[in-house]
Amino acid sequence: MRAVTFGDSLEYRPDYPTPVPGPGEALIRVRLAGICNTDLEITRGYLGFQGVLGHEFVGEVAAVGPGGEGWLGGRVVGEINCACGECGCCRVGLGRHCPNRATLGIQGKDGCLADFATLPVVNLHRVPENLADEQAVFCEPLAAAWEILEQVHLQPTDRVLVLGDGKLGLLVALVLARVTTALQLAGKHPEKLALASRFGIPAVPTDHLTGEEYDVVVDATGSITGFQQALRHVRPRGTLVLKSTVAARRPVDLAPVVIREVTVVGSRCGPFAPALRQLAGGLDPGPLITAVYPAKEALEAFARAADRASLKVLVDFRNKE
Amino acid sequence: MRAVTFGDSLEYRPDYPTPVPGPGEALIRVRLAGICNTDLEITRGYLGFQGVLGHEFVGEVAAVGPGGEGWLGGRVVGEINCACGECGCCRVGLGRHCPNRATLGIQGKDGCLADFATLPVVNLHRVPENLADEQAVFCEPLAAAWEILEQVHLQPTDRVLVLGDGKLGLLVALVLARVTTALQLAGKHPEKLALASRFGIPAVPTDHLTGEEYDVVVDATGSITGFQQALRHVRPRGTLVLKSTVAARRPVDLAPVVIREVTVVGSRCGPFAPALRQLAGGLDPGPLITAVYPAKEALEAFARAADRASLKVLVDFRNKE
Repeated sequence: MRAVTFGDSLEYRPDYPTPVPGPGEALIRVRLAGICNTDLEITRGYLGFQGVLGHEFVGEVAAVGPGGEGWLGGRVVGEINCACGECGCCRVGLGRHCPNRATLGIQGKDGCLADFATLPVVNLHRVPENLADEQAVFCEPLAAAWEILEQVHLQPTDRVLVLGDGKLGLLVALVLARVTTALQLAGKHPEKLALASRFGIPAVPTDHLTGEEYDVVVDATGSITGFQQALRHVRPRGTLVLKSTVAARRPVDLAPVVIREVTVVGSRCGPFAPALRQLAGGLDPGPLITAVYPAKEALEAFARAADRASLKVLVDFRNKE
Repeated sequence: MRAVTFGDSLEYRPDYPTPVPGPGEALIRVRLAGICNTDLEITRGYLGFQGVLGHEFVGEVAAVGPGGEGWLGGRVVGEINCACGECGCCRVGLGRHCPNRATLGIQGKDGCLADFATLPVVNLHRVPENLADEQAVFCEPLAAAWEILEQVHLQPTDRVLVLGDGKLGLLVALVLARVTTALQLAGKHPEKLALASRFGIPAVPTDHLTGEEYDVVVDATGSITGFQQALRHVRPRGTLVLKSTVAARRPVDLAPVVIREVTVVGSRCGPFAPALRQLAGGLDPGPLITAVYPAKEALEAFARAADRASLKVLVDFRNKE
């Protein structure tokens, strides 16, 4: 099958072996897959992952073991953490943190930038018929935005700043705009800020924020400097939601966290159900799609995704050539 | 008056000008003052403070303006943040975070390692008669330990780790031991761990912790490596309370905060009332006192406080020679 792999370098492989589903797993024929900032960070050494990249997809179930027949042929999206189901984390509903987990295209399991991928049937969610592939493929990153609301109780009076106008920042804003009436997005790219405005989200250049403080700040910059920048805009006793994961380290001054008694909330993968409902309810993230590349041009797709002007770049596996 | 100052270097000054209380302030004759790790960090450049050091004291009110006569001669401890009383923080009860504040011996206001200091009358707390000066002087750092319970809801099932067997770590453990039944203190100093055990606190060497995870970890190491060390012992979705403030910066890997969705809670000064009640109720932190130096030997006291084998070092201003 066709696959995008990372080992010593990023490669497009026309002849990668098709994965064999394990017990309880489905074989999924990938239709459309997204490139995430985490994929780019992996190609810079983040987490040391090697194998097929990709964890954002919409596909259809091509094969499934006994008991799963109802899924066959169904169009699905899938949660990316494959938990053991038996450990302490799993028993308290934190399978996304299972210490024995594999994570699609990130840790211990080949990803979905390929013709086929495997996932446990329990990870699958049926895609409503009214959703286009181009909407459904946003389910995973949109779920990561919803994760913030699983972790942080946003109060009606909270002023909320989303820092970063990239694809994650925009999706976070599209979620938080539902529950706060005082949302501000800030970023560095005029055309992305303009897009936010078209979605009805108040957006300003980051350097216009001087001195302003917010109750809750989300660092969705995807940048190593984002944390310190976000910290400057959190009020005392406020909350900083940290969404950025980067491969590099840098000297960080944690003293302001202590002095201002900031609460820093690390936030990662989120629940698919509200994301799917939001998409089915009419949210169209289509304007966030910068480009769709056919599978054989996956390396070009990665180069495009790494361009700072880009938002979401998709790779299309529907065409079999 | 006698005073311990920091400018280019740490100095003992026998002839420093006595401070003049401002409106609403009391002049306090210091009886006993403590040296805190923050004082040591200031002498390493932390916060760029210059002036009289010290923010832990017990003293008596020597002079006070109209309306405050009832305080005259009373033995007091005092909250160290002098707030404006009018800003947004002050209006919501967060005077300790007032952006216009001065902080005794830390920012914009001479401290209490001197014969006299000034503080707003509203900052003062009367010391119950049954408390010795040597107990009351622990009120400020003990309040900083209580701050954790103002910020974090410890649940009955929470396993709690206090990392650091220094004076702050021990005080934190003495507070948290009241509300959790699964407390563990870890540190690097056998004699301090033995002291913890004498207080009834389970204590182990830090390197015995390998692989163990806790619901809540308090970094009271006072060390620049404490954060990363604490992070290794927090369970996914757990809480890391950050108590250490240090002058130096170092490269920090924040990825585990995101991946494990840890909540990091910066924690600083705390409420005096519960600390005073705990002391009045019988907590005697006396065993934490390493040495008491007369005022004129304050520089020796600082050297002793900087010794890693030391716990609390006090400076005695009761003797007027």
